[in-house]
This record gives sequence, C-alpha cells and structure tokens, in this order.
Amino acid sequence: MTGPAHLGGHAKKHKVTIVGSGNWGSTISKIIAENTRLNKDVFEEQVQMWVYEEDVAIPASSKHFKGDDTPQKLTSIINSCHENVKYLPGITLPSNIVANPSLVDAVRDSTILVFNLPHQFIGKVCDQIRGQILPFARGISCIKGVNVSDDGVSLFSEWIGDGLDIYVGALSGANIANEIAAEKWSETTIAYDPPAMDSRAPSPRSGSPQPLFTVTEVPDSVHRDARGRTSKTKLTGVPPEYPPLDHDCFRALFHRPYFHVQMVSDVAGVSLGGALKNIVALAAGFVDGRGWGDNAKAAIMRIGLMEMVRFGKEFFGETVQSATFTESSAGVADLITSCSGGRNFRCAKKAVEKGITVDQVEQEDLNGQKLQGTTTAYEVNSFLKARGLEKDYPLFTAVNDILRGTRKVDDIPELVAAVDDE
Amino acid sequence: MTGPAHLGGHAKKHKVTIVGSGNWGSTISKIIAENTRLNKDVFEEQVQMWVYEEDVAIPASSKHFKGDDTPQKLTSIINSCHENVKYLPGITLPSNIVANPSLVDAVRDSTILVFNLPHQFIGKVCDQIRGQILPFARGISCIKGVNVSDDGVSLFSEWIGDGLDIYVGALSGANIANEIAAEKWSETTIAYDPPAMDSRAPSPRSGSPQPLFTVTEVPDSVHRDARGRTSKTKLTGVPPEYPPLDHDCFRALFHRPYFHVQMVSDVAGVSLGGALKNIVALAAGFVDGRGWGDNAKAAIMRIGLMEMVRFGKEFFGETVQSATFTESSAGVADLITSCSGGRNFRCAKKAVEKGITVDQVEQEDLNGQKLQGTTTAYEVNSFLKARGLEKDYPLFTAVNDILRGTRKVDDIPELVAAVDDE
Repeated sequence: MTGPAHLGGHAKKHKVTIVGSGNWGSTISKIIAENTRLNKDVFEEQVQMWVYEEDVAIPASSKHFKGDDTPQKLTSIINSCHENVKYLPGITLPSNIVANPSLVDAVRDSTILVFNLPHQFIGKVCDQIRGQILPFARGISCIKGVNVSDDGVSLFSEWIGDGLDIYVGALSGANIANEIAAEKWSETTIAYDPPAMDSRAPSPRSGSPQPLFTVTEVPDSVHRDARGRTSKTKLTGVPPEYPPLDHDCFRALFHRPYFHVQMVSDVAGVSLGGALKNIVALAAGFVDGRGWGDNAKAAIMRIGLMEMVRFGKEFFGETVQSATFTESSAGVADLITSCSGGRNFRCAKKAVEKGITVDQVEQEDLNGQKLQGTTTAYEVNSFLKARGLEKDYPLFTAVNDILRGTRKVDDIPELVAAVDDE
Repeated sequence: MTGPAHLGGHAKKHKVTIVGSGNWGSTISKIIAENTRLNKDVFEEQVQMWVYEEDVAIPASSKHFKGDDTPQKLTSIINSCHENVKYLPGITLPSNIVANPSLVDAVRDSTILVFNLPHQFIGKVCDQIRGQILPFARGISCIKGVNVSDDGVSLFSEWIGDGLDIYVGALSGANIANEIAAEKWSETTIAYDPPAMDSRAPSPRSGSPQPLFTVTEVPDSVHRDARGRTSKTKLTGVPPEYPPLDHDCFRALFHRPYFHVQMVSDVAGVSLGGALKNIVALAAGFVDGRGWGDNAKAAIMRIGLMEMVRFGKEFFGETVQSATFTESSAGVADLITSCSGGRNFRCAKKAVEKGITVDQVEQEDLNGQKLQGTTTAYEVNSFLKARGLEKDYPLFTAVNDILRGTRKVDDIPELVAAVDDE
C-alpha cells in the first residue's frame, strides 16, 4: 500500500515517535513501523519508540533466552531481539523500530508524536519535552479515558496539546492489544480535527477537496480559528515542505489489513467513549453476576450507550456527534468488547457472584489498584451531582450508588425505568 | 400500576386475545394477563390465548404429574394447571388466561389481537379469522422477521394487517422468552403508528397532547391518511366508548417491572431489526469460530449495525429512523443478544470450528431445519442483487457468499474494508 498521491513528492518526510512502550504502545509501534516501511515517500522509515528504561531478564520461555538470566536494559533487548520481552512477549517487532531510553532524544525533530502510556505519566512527560519538540508537530493520543473533576471534563488529548502547545487528536476503539499484536482483525477510530487556521489559504499541494486539516499559516488571532472555535494553544502551521498532516496521512500511518481505521473529527466523542464505557461495563457485570442473562445485559448496554450519547451532547454539544457513540469502533464496538470480557466487567461480575464489594475485588485481585470504571463512575457522579443532573443519568448514578453501597443491583430495573419513548 | 387517567372511565373495555401459545406466546400471555388484572378499568381481566390443540402427557418432572401419563388436551392442562407444560414448563401462568382451542372463538369481540406464532402460520390464521373479528380491532405482531423476495420487502405486521383489514404494529427486542418468563429483567420495543385517519378531530377523551393514534372516524379517502401515508387497508376507527388505543394503552398492556417497554412509531425499523440481525449473528459466529477474538466480533457487529441502518434507510426511507437500529432494544440490544449466544451465532461458529458448512450444521444439529439467518441472508442477497446493490452491503454479501462457499471467512476483513469515514 502506498499513500494517496498528494502525500508524496514533498521535500521532507514525517518523522514519527511513539511515546510509550507497554503492551498497547508496543502494538501501535509495530503497526506504525510496518506502515512507514510501506510509505517511504511520506514517512521516515525508522520510528522512535520511547522506552522507560528498566533492567529485564529475558524469560526462559522466550526464543531469545540463551541460558543467561542476567538482567539487561530493556531498550537493548528490544533493539537486538526486536521483541518487547516484558510487555509484548512472543511478538516480533519490525526492525525499523528504535527503542530509545531518552524521551527528549526520541521526540527530537519528530512531526508526529503518538502518545501511548498510562495517563498518570502525561504531566511528567509534557514537562520533560515541552520546548524540546518541533513547534509544528502534531500528536495522537492512544490513551483511553478523560479527566473528570467537579469543575469539568477535559480530554487527555487536550491536556497533552495544551502542555506542549501542539494539536493532539485521539485514537480509540475495540482494541485489545494482544489480539491486534497477533494480527487478528479489528477496527479503530481516529479523531483528528485541528483548527482550520487559515481556511482561505489551503496548501496548494493538498489533493483533498476540503483541506480543513492542512495548516499552513499562523493566524493573526491564535485563539480563534477560521471555523470560530477557540483554543488555549497557539498552533504553528506545518511547513509546506512536508506532506499535509491530514486524514489521509494518518490513515496511511495507522491503517493495516488487520487494523482498519475510520477517520472522524469528533475528538471529544472518541475520548468520552473510551472512558464512559467502563461505567457501563461495571453495570453489565453487575446484572450478569446476578444471573439475569443476556436480555438484561443487552438492556444495560443499550441504556448505557444512550447515557454516553446524552453526556457527550450535554457537555460537548458543539462538536460531539451521536454517531461517534452509536456507530464507531470507539463507541458501540468498544462498549461491546468491554462488556464481553473486560476487566471492569469481570470484577463487577465477580463481586456480585461472591457477595462482596467491587472494592474488595480490587483489593484481592488487583493488589488494591483501582479499576478505571470505579474511578470514572465516582468522578462522573461527583461532576453530575455538582450540577444537579444525577437523575438524568440513572444508570451512571446507579453504578455509583451500588459501588458506594447505598443501592443494590436489584434496584437497577426500577432506577432506569424512566420512559424513553420517542 | 394503573393506566394513565385518560384510559379509564369509558363505557367499554378492551378485550385481548393472544394468537399463539408457544414458548414466546405463553410468555407474552403471562405478561398481558398480569397487566389486565392490574388495569381492570381499561381491559377485560380475562384474556384469551389461542392454543393449537394437541394431546400432551404431563411429564413426570412436572409438579402437576399425578402418576398418570395418559395424554390430555393441552388446553385442558393449561386451564386446570395454569401451566403450558409442553412449551413453557415450570412457569405458573396467571389464572385469568383462558386457553382456547378455537381460533375463531378466541378472537371474537377482541379489540386487541396479539400475534405470536411461527410466521409459516400467518396466512392460514388470517384466512380463518378474516371477517370474524371486530372491524376496528388493532393488532401487535410479536413475530420476528420480514418477508423478502426479489420484488420487495414486506413486514409480517403488514401481511397480517392486510390479511385482516386492520392496523397491526410490531413488538421486538432483546427478548429470550425463558428469561422473561422467569421474570429476569429485560426491555422491548413496541412500534405502533396507525394512520392518523382524522387528525382534525382527535378524541376529546384522550389525555395525550398529540393524539395521533386515536382513530375516531373513518376518513373519506381510505387509502391516504391525514399524514399523507397510503395504506392498502381500509381502516375502521375505534369507537369512542373504548379507551383510546394509543401508546399509553399498549404500554399499560405490555410494560412490567421486569419487562420495560419503549414505545416508538417506526414499525419497519423494529421489524427489520429482528430480521437483519440474524445475518450479522452468522458473521459474528464466523469470526468467533475463526478465533479472532472480541475485537473482531465487535467490529462485525458495528459494521452489521451500519448495514442494517443503511438497508432500512434505503428501502423504508420515508418512515425508518436510524435510532431504531442504533438505540432501541429491537435494534442494537437484540443484535448484541443474538451475537452473544443465539442459534445463528452458535451454528455459524460451530461450522467454522469444525471446518464444515452451515448447511451441514443445519442437517446434523437441526434435523435439516433452516436457520432464520441463512434464509434471510439468501433472500436479502437475492433482493440486493436484483437491484445491483450487493457492493453497498459488503457484510451481508460476504455472509451470503461464505454460506454458498464462494468466499472464505478469511476474506471478510478485505471485503468490508470500504472506507466509512465521515
């Protein structure tokens, strides 16, 4: 596969860095490295992968084990064996991935930064590389979740973008990393919609009929784009010697025969889908654990999906599309996967089956680590309560109340019984 | 629960007949009989259930078994034991259900007819009761599926309605009968939208702000209603001495604490959902049998849902709502249930796992009985092919081609790879 014609023939190529190298980060690096190899006219073949350095012994089960269990640098193992033996064992990575222990060195001169690390590290990473990256770089966040506080909801992509003064989109979908690493077919959704900084002067090189995403000039007013949207970030245009950083470009970077990419513009919807589905997965686990069967589980998923749409519309009404929730991989498909066998679902189900609290399951099975769903359920509830809106989200509220022990699973049907006819 | 105020206080009450007494028919009869007991001001308490008479021996496992295995009339067993020992064993039916072996007698004087029987019997049943029912009766079809031929797609509700010269709506959802009979919580969708025969003269008794569904007069032009829709059926208005047959009335008849009803107007969408999901369930079984995991299964369901929406919009564009597919129990929820453990899913999965055809699974496991999904897949494909539209429905087409042996499961990702960006 080669990229669309308008991407080629530029003086410069895009350099790509993946910030993060866990299970999902390594999988995304594999995909990207396969694509930079196939699209050498658009991307530099070699891709940088920032690896948080640690000493790792190659496990005896690995084909790279040579009878020596002395710990070695993880970056050295990846660069010599082309396998992340700790976080993605058994998968051969393309040899054009360069594992780099220096974050600042890894991101230097890259035009595309792909963030794929636990959200707790976002702040620290931004502090380290702020001012060390190209000012016109663009990012994609593969980190699921959103930041919810009583004050508001903010997206990880916004957090990174504001931290680095660059535009950052989001990738999310029904994407269990190990299945994708094994090249089992799946889909994903990438939302990318940078401010149209100068819609009157699209790049003459762009073959796109509506080059909304080709940013070539810095506007006079940096806080309001040509479509009237405001941004905290002063964006710098991508110089015209690079191929345009548009939907075609990101598709060429992420799409594989086993990893189908759907490009959209709704960053908020894509990000919210990946966060709110965890609340619904807890509810699905509750009713499944109660033995209510497939009808009830499907009902929970349907009601949860409707509350996800409502939440998006209510708090991101300007940009959110219902279809992102009801039609995209980042919406309904990710919800289905999470309610099938995801960790939130399994822990909630186990809690009900054993007659213990989810908190106890977290203590016993996760060493006290909190599930994403429980944290999100509490945060969203606190946010809704601060606005007097708990009643409008009966399922989200029920999950919070069941987690806190003030409601029972048996109350769910009554709690969600609000009429939702046309 | 009592019905909304405007339903009460009429000179006459609605009499209800359930036509059919299988697993699902008996379950729906239980629901209805519970509700007629609670809403005696609107409905006659006693409900008629037409039972195809047969001689049945009470099984030794039944609590009604008294050491005698002489076959008895099924209607007698139901009326004395209040249990359909053959089709819904173990569930006590309300004593206000009257099992009636005479179809004509069962439907006599009923204002509400609920059809819940295998679709093969629709024609014969209509022939028997045509002219024997109240001319202003209204029906609800609980029969899943649609009639697809090269000529077109028609709904079972329309078939019954045209056969009896009455208006018939549709009930469908994520409704596994045994779970509902056990009073495990679920949801359903009822679509009811009779022609607004005289929108200028709504029933003064109706408390509804927009009594579109209250039909009080026979219009001059019987083939075009006040909303401009045409109908083959000459409808007769419900006399004003009855409570209006509107959404509130049907909710009062079907809604239970364990069976939540969502009322909509989109009869075509509700009916199509129950038919087309079986094609998608086959595809989900194919990829699951291939071992592709939860990502792939969720992708299939997402793509399938999109093709269901497209099909509805393309062929029932006047009335179909996308939301019926993406937001209702008859759409996304029923699809989820069918792709979790439904028969089409299981048989398709087994075929791929064993390396045999679905046809062979039908022969071996179903005594040659055809799955609904295979029949629908062939019919829909033939319908699309006749219009040159196979390419617009790559998943539906792939399922047909895999069933016919001209494509393989491994081809699915490539076949459905058409870009569906915004």
